[in-house]
Amino acid sequence: MNTLEHLISDIPCPDTEARSQARERWDSLVKPRGSLGRLEDLAVQIAGITGELDPSLERKTIALFAGDHGVVEQGVSKYPKSVTASMIRTFVANGAGINILAEQAQTEVRVINMGVDTEDVPAEILDRSIRKGTDNFMIGPAMTRQEAFRSLETGYKFAEILYAQGINLLGVGDMGIGNTTASSAITACLTESSVGQVTDKGTGLSAEQISHKSQVIEQALRVNRPDPQDPLDVLSKVGGFEIGAIAGCLIGGAAHRIPLLLDGFITSAGALTAAALVPEIRPFLIAAHISGEKGHRVALNHLGLTPLLDLEMRLGEGSGAALAMPVVETSVRLLNNMATFKEAGISGGE
Amino acid sequence: MNTLEHLISDIPCPDTEARSQARERWDSLVKPRGSLGRLEDLAVQIAGITGELDPSLERKTIALFAGDHGVVEQGVSKYPKSVTASMIRTFVANGAGINILAEQAQTEVRVINMGVDTEDVPAEILDRSIRKGTDNFMIGPAMTRQEAFRSLETGYKFAEILYAQGINLLGVGDMGIGNTTASSAITACLTESSVGQVTDKGTGLSAEQISHKSQVIEQALRVNRPDPQDPLDVLSKVGGFEIGAIAGCLIGGAAHRIPLLLDGFITSAGALTAAALVPEIRPFLIAAHISGEKGHRVALNHLGLTPLLDLEMRLGEGSGAALAMPVVETSVRLLNNMATFKEAGISGGE
Repeated sequence: MNTLEHLISDIPCPDTEARSQARERWDSLVKPRGSLGRLEDLAVQIAGITGELDPSLERKTIALFAGDHGVVEQGVSKYPKSVTASMIRTFVANGAGINILAEQAQTEVRVINMGVDTEDVPAEILDRSIRKGTDNFMIGPAMTRQEAFRSLETGYKFAEILYAQGINLLGVGDMGIGNTTASSAITACLTESSVGQVTDKGTGLSAEQISHKSQVIEQALRVNRPDPQDPLDVLSKVGGFEIGAIAGCLIGGAAHRIPLLLDGFITSAGALTAAALVPEIRPFLIAAHISGEKGHRVALNHLGLTPLLDLEMRLGEGSGAALAMPVVETSVRLLNNMATFKEAGISGGE
Repeated sequence: MNTLEHLISDIPCPDTEARSQARERWDSLVKPRGSLGRLEDLAVQIAGITGELDPSLERKTIALFAGDHGVVEQGVSKYPKSVTASMIRTFVANGAGINILAEQAQTEVRVINMGVDTEDVPAEILDRSIRKGTDNFMIGPAMTRQEAFRSLETGYKFAEILYAQGINLLGVGDMGIGNTTASSAITACLTESSVGQVTDKGTGLSAEQISHKSQVIEQALRVNRPDPQDPLDVLSKVGGFEIGAIAGCLIGGAAHRIPLLLDGFITSAGALTAAALVPEIRPFLIAAHISGEKGHRVALNHLGLTPLLDLEMRLGEGSGAALAMPVVETSVRLLNNMATFKEAGISGGE
């Protein structure tokens, strides 16, 4: 795989026959029609993605991509850049939020270093660093077009590895101080929204700090002039290495019919990038939750996705994706293991 | 326990010291302040209920109370009364939605017969039948005041049994064809709402059928004149045996500091009844989800509860409570198992 064209080809269509069979089976089960609400839609979507009514979803992974951001120099985050490196070590030490959530959801977490500004990458982390953080995109492009392609390709190839290992339910996550700034810039471009509509508090900015962050993004868009018709241009000019990898991983997952759980705002910026390149991936995406970050709603609306959970989380790391994994599994179990009206000896049903 | 006064005494206060400790610990953990959203509030609530930051929640139960309703004679449900009996047999056969959800949540389900119209109660079901269904409350009271008290007392005593068995997380559920009609009547009385505001499709009524159901409830309120200041009067005139038992079970659970998960609209009618008798139980209640049934929102608002999940479910059986149990457990695990900023070697935090 050496060209963008190769990478974005060959996304299968959802299996409409499996979807119809799933809908029909729901209506035969011992419950009022439609009374399992979104769980019914979810199991139908999974049937369409996998081509099976009762796929195994036992081999779960959260792919957590990490990278640093030069724009942090502009004072857009409450935390210093060094926190990204501290956090990837915390992931390895099992002390972060995602570790606890993953244990509860019985999923593994794989951390991929896409470009953290550190010499000290723990051996447990897959090191695919492009370089030690993007450039400050307020004054020029975050990365070259070639680097943007490499970040996509790395994510795509990682999805292929996961597929080869039998992973059948995949959540994506992010770590990177400054990456809500990059995500706001991407979301503004690709959804044609104003910067103000998609810029929010990130790790906990005040109103004044949010206004400063918006100005930095406005300036970045003026300086770089990313072309909304060219997603790779947008990614290279105002994106991040981990965001490109998330986009590539989603494309690779869809190519292999793996159900894909988005997490929060940063992963939705990755999904916007991926869907701008390959609109055919949309039916493979599940929005695990809606975060408190306002650009997240804008991105999900643009993608046509309705979030499963709304618990006002804004942690990133794949935390929302992990929390929603059991909901996805439950929907499929209900579809396949509930009795039918006939089995329960209830005539008619509807 | 032979009097209402005895039953409603002795609800403890939430432990404010434990709540403060939980809040303080959240702010020391390696994440932006408040970024776990509702999960943070939930673990604080559990600390207040149990008096512990890290209580065991491993011994979970869904208490599923079943009963029949004379008002079904008025054509208020899509299903015949006999479906209640069929469903309690389906619970025993592990074929219902709640069985699959419970397995996923690793909770047991206990079914209590409060008054199903059947001779054939499976041995696995706890038989506390008051009689084989309430009277048709469109033409007179659903039950006597003594029967209403007995339904409450039965639920209360069941909670005491569960407490004695070490149950430390309790969800309530319901089964009873016709019981959204009773729940709408109770909710209209106890929240002083109009019948139209709290009457909806139940198992799947058309607009015309909903209008008929509203008229039946209006007539029931005219005929019986339940006194909103006297919750036992409301329960006896337009309630149901399973709804009284749910109310009693919630009071008993709160008396023993057990975190209590409500399910859908019927359990919220039970909670309204319980909270009208004993307002002190409110801090012990957790709204697992919001259903598609519009009276549910009215009831939860009146109780001051915000639902955790919104998946448009309207199945009953304790289904929403089971789905939310892992979320409750996760919140407590996060609070207790995440690393602090100090442990992660990140200075300052905020």
